[in-house]
Amino acid sequence: MTDIHPGRRALLRGTTATAATAVLAGTGLAGASEAAATPYPYASEKRGGGSGPRIGILLYDGYSLLDPTGPAEVLSRLPGASVTMLAERRGPVRTDTGDVAVVAERALEEAGRLDVLLVPGAGNRGTVGAMENRRLLRWIRETDRHTRFTTSVCTGSLILAAAGLLDGRRATTYWASGPYLEQNFDVTYVPERYVRSGKFLTGAGVSAGLDMALYLAALLTDDETARAVQLAVEYDPRPPFDAGNAQRASAEEKARALKLLADSQV
Amino acid sequence: MTDIHPGRRALLRGTTATAATAVLAGTGLAGASEAAATPYPYASEKRGGGSGPRIGILLYDGYSLLDPTGPAEVLSRLPGASVTMLAERRGPVRTDTGDVAVVAERALEEAGRLDVLLVPGAGNRGTVGAMENRRLLRWIRETDRHTRFTTSVCTGSLILAAAGLLDGRRATTYWASGPYLEQNFDVTYVPERYVRSGKFLTGAGVSAGLDMALYLAALLTDDETARAVQLAVEYDPRPPFDAGNAQRASAEEKARALKLLADSQV
Repeated sequence: MTDIHPGRRALLRGTTATAATAVLAGTGLAGASEAAATPYPYASEKRGGGSGPRIGILLYDGYSLLDPTGPAEVLSRLPGASVTMLAERRGPVRTDTGDVAVVAERALEEAGRLDVLLVPGAGNRGTVGAMENRRLLRWIRETDRHTRFTTSVCTGSLILAAAGLLDGRRATTYWASGPYLEQNFDVTYVPERYVRSGKFLTGAGVSAGLDMALYLAALLTDDETARAVQLAVEYDPRPPFDAGNAQRASAEEKARALKLLADSQV
Repeated sequence: MTDIHPGRRALLRGTTATAATAVLAGTGLAGASEAAATPYPYASEKRGGGSGPRIGILLYDGYSLLDPTGPAEVLSRLPGASVTMLAERRGPVRTDTGDVAVVAERALEEAGRLDVLLVPGAGNRGTVGAMENRRLLRWIRETDRHTRFTTSVCTGSLILAAAGLLDGRRATTYWASGPYLEQNFDVTYVPERYVRSGKFLTGAGVSAGLDMALYLAALLTDDETARAVQLAVEYDPRPPFDAGNAQRASAEEKARALKLLADSQV
């Protein structure tokens, strides 16, 4: 079966007309035969764009790919939400490995008011670059004045701290960066998956952005909606190993992880 | 503390020169003061590029952002790995929500041989578009001839099935798309987080790509390396809710999740 035969193709084309039942299919509210009529048992129709939270995610050279994209996946499912990738200049912004680029849709001065600002983390080069970029830090401070939540993933909290936003607060960061955060800023490092301190939400390393984003989803809407988002992205994590917690890892395991990171980055 | 004072900036600049000790810092092999000298206690130096697995990730109009980016984050940390985003044409490829674009670095005909092909999932529009794209399906079939592993996330398995690659096999897909997969193809749907059938690995919805990628990381290298990757991306999932499993969700919860998806997509 290498090509779609005409009958099935026609069936697939028919999905737009059956949007109402398609949304119900696969939910137990419609029969299995209806559910099987479309690959994804609902029809897309973007609604309420702009009526929900305006989420801005800052990209800068050398960020880690999952830091912005995990939360973007989660938060883009909130009713009426808009997610905008931002950077100093519009256009592709490359990750720490140099392999992948996500497009910044708007330059910083085009961002407008944001309900949520998210600052992702990066490798050493990207993090230091952002921490030393006075224009970027100034923009973060100015944007923060009007946000409901200012957030970070991984070493993004070092950038928020460099912008002066975390003084006197509790925060988390990448497991290997906790000592740096605590010793160079007036911040109490808390090795939790995500930490809320007033309007500031910081996430631990890389993948922690998913957990933080679900928590943020509940703050922006309600638990019921956040739970629906979790099911929408089928976030029922079952990693094949239980090796992601630095507090339980040996010195050798940590050294191996940091070496993999170092060798993977440009 | 809104700007970096000169002394600390000089310290940060010094990280390149102290690469060897920086890698050890934060691992218990060096003191806390050394760990605190850099935001990320290692120095980046991409090594062995091209000597490890060549991973190609297919982008097409309307894919879901986390499907390609979660596995890309994980697999890019494997020693010597290259991760290349591919599409029919080079350039930005937009997600299902229309908000975000990832850049395809190479067109399909420029992909070369791949050790791993990963096909992400999409909303209804994107999935049907790919399933009806004969050129794309032909390229998938031809590429698969030389891969070590051909893989998918979410409804990407419907695209592999449409290409004729899953005939007679067990596979998984997005929870709401299982009936479609089973009734339209010679495939046994298995509602697990990821399913291996020979060289084919299929993941469940969206975020399942992370779990599948770690499993794949172990197949491509060994358990020790995969565990180090898990720690490198701090994948110790702790979602604030336990709502991501469709088999435990009510009909109402499923309907709510599918409506959020439908409303978020263009």
